[in-house]
Amino acid sequence: MVKSIGYLGPCGTFSHEAAELYAQGQSCTLMEFVSIQDVLYAVKDNVISEAIVPIENSLEGAVNVTLDVLAKEEGLYIKGELILPVSLNLVVRKGTLPGDITAIMSHPQPLGQAREYLNRCYPKADQIEENSTSKAAQRVSEGDGTYAAITSRTAAKINGLDVLAADIQDVANNHTRFVIISKEYSKRTGCDKTSIVFSTDNKPGSLYRVLDIFSLWDINMTRIESRPSKNALGQYIFFIDIDGHIEDQDVYDAMTMIKRKTSFYRFIGSYPMIKGKI
Amino acid sequence: MVKSIGYLGPCGTFSHEAAELYAQGQSCTLMEFVSIQDVLYAVKDNVISEAIVPIENSLEGAVNVTLDVLAKEEGLYIKGELILPVSLNLVVRKGTLPGDITAIMSHPQPLGQAREYLNRCYPKADQIEENSTSKAAQRVSEGDGTYAAITSRTAAKINGLDVLAADIQDVANNHTRFVIISKEYSKRTGCDKTSIVFSTDNKPGSLYRVLDIFSLWDINMTRIESRPSKNALGQYIFFIDIDGHIEDQDVYDAMTMIKRKTSFYRFIGSYPMIKGKI
Repeated sequence: MVKSIGYLGPCGTFSHEAAELYAQGQSCTLMEFVSIQDVLYAVKDNVISEAIVPIENSLEGAVNVTLDVLAKEEGLYIKGELILPVSLNLVVRKGTLPGDITAIMSHPQPLGQAREYLNRCYPKADQIEENSTSKAAQRVSEGDGTYAAITSRTAAKINGLDVLAADIQDVANNHTRFVIISKEYSKRTGCDKTSIVFSTDNKPGSLYRVLDIFSLWDINMTRIESRPSKNALGQYIFFIDIDGHIEDQDVYDAMTMIKRKTSFYRFIGSYPMIKGKI
Repeated sequence: MVKSIGYLGPCGTFSHEAAELYAQGQSCTLMEFVSIQDVLYAVKDNVISEAIVPIENSLEGAVNVTLDVLAKEEGLYIKGELILPVSLNLVVRKGTLPGDITAIMSHPQPLGQAREYLNRCYPKADQIEENSTSKAAQRVSEGDGTYAAITSRTAAKINGLDVLAADIQDVANNHTRFVIISKEYSKRTGCDKTSIVFSTDNKPGSLYRVLDIFSLWDINMTRIESRPSKNALGQYIFFIDIDGHIEDQDVYDAMTMIKRKTSFYRFIGSYPMIKGKI
């Protein structure tokens, strides 16, 4: 069976770019979906073998929907990651002038990544959430010339749109980290990362006691992200990335202890670490 | 001088409700602003004495813009907090039927709090980000009958709109925590909370070493929230809430140590703890 990889489409999204990069040299087919949620559930339902989805951006932070599905659904694992530089462009139909723009469309993440630019240059324009940056470009091309989209150069080209302003993200150095989601995690390479999600009892010091376990086993934590438990305000679940593979004896032992000390625990994958600085 | 309190308007937003609740029994005037950013900068620029803004929601998590301004701007302090139950309603102009709705407007937070409902019931409708829930209601009242807003009952009433569906948030028990921002923090009451924001060197174990300081001084951490540093992917700043007042000797000593062990540190306020469960 040829491997199928799902991504947030249509053609020209940053997810599409990431998917093409990931697919290079592999024998596989790419398949587009209309939302991040749909891509992830397609893996769960065996419609595709793998999904590639954004998980965090260097300006706007965590992609909530990706984290929320990984916490909720059992049997989905991160098997790899990929970092993409993201340059955002304000694009319009040929002939549209800045003064004509009444609405600006994009995915919520790029709208957040260009928040200061939009407040400064287009304080009165509506900000319309689309499912993807390319969908936004498509809508602008079908529009009446009063719309703009925040999107990639590729999507602008595909839809025959002009770039009115390039690199509009609030900080030049903008990167998005994508993860590859599958029903299996990756084999040990000797230079790996592991991701888990857990919640603790709502007692003083309970998060610290879990982090203490990493310290006891000399395990380096590289990221902690909290999300609401959705049960009550002030209760959280924690996403943690550490160095090492679940099959490393130390990581395995530490995780066994963490499982004992948490009210909810889920291993969400071990995968090769990306080397070098971005 | 009469105290002036700013909030995210217009009339009928959840922020407005929180501001009215907070103003009860005080001699003060309320002043509305068009964005959360604007309210906060009005305190900084001495246009108003205090602001009341949302900081986290039990379903959708942190309000990024509030955290980002508090980390960036010196001299703004949290002096109190207030928790509000939030019931979201889908409202329309009289006569609009579910099948007529092509676009649904609200603030990004309520759009996130009703994400599953919207995907299930209105997968094809545009989701339009407005600066506030009441602004969304206003726009629907001026619209052509194909728009809906996610808003409060008060905003529906003010704008003469019908409630098509009530309590549409994805989990019934939905609360938003608001904070009162001022140029001064609160006096010690003996039952207080303290908020700080900091970043650590990008070295193994550096976050753990900071949390270890709380443990050494027996200080209970009640919340940790990470946000990107915006310099590079994988670098974060951390917002932490602890029990105690900055004038408690233990808290003061622990903070002095934390200042020494972090590359960036900012105290953002001590204030009375809200008692009882929500």
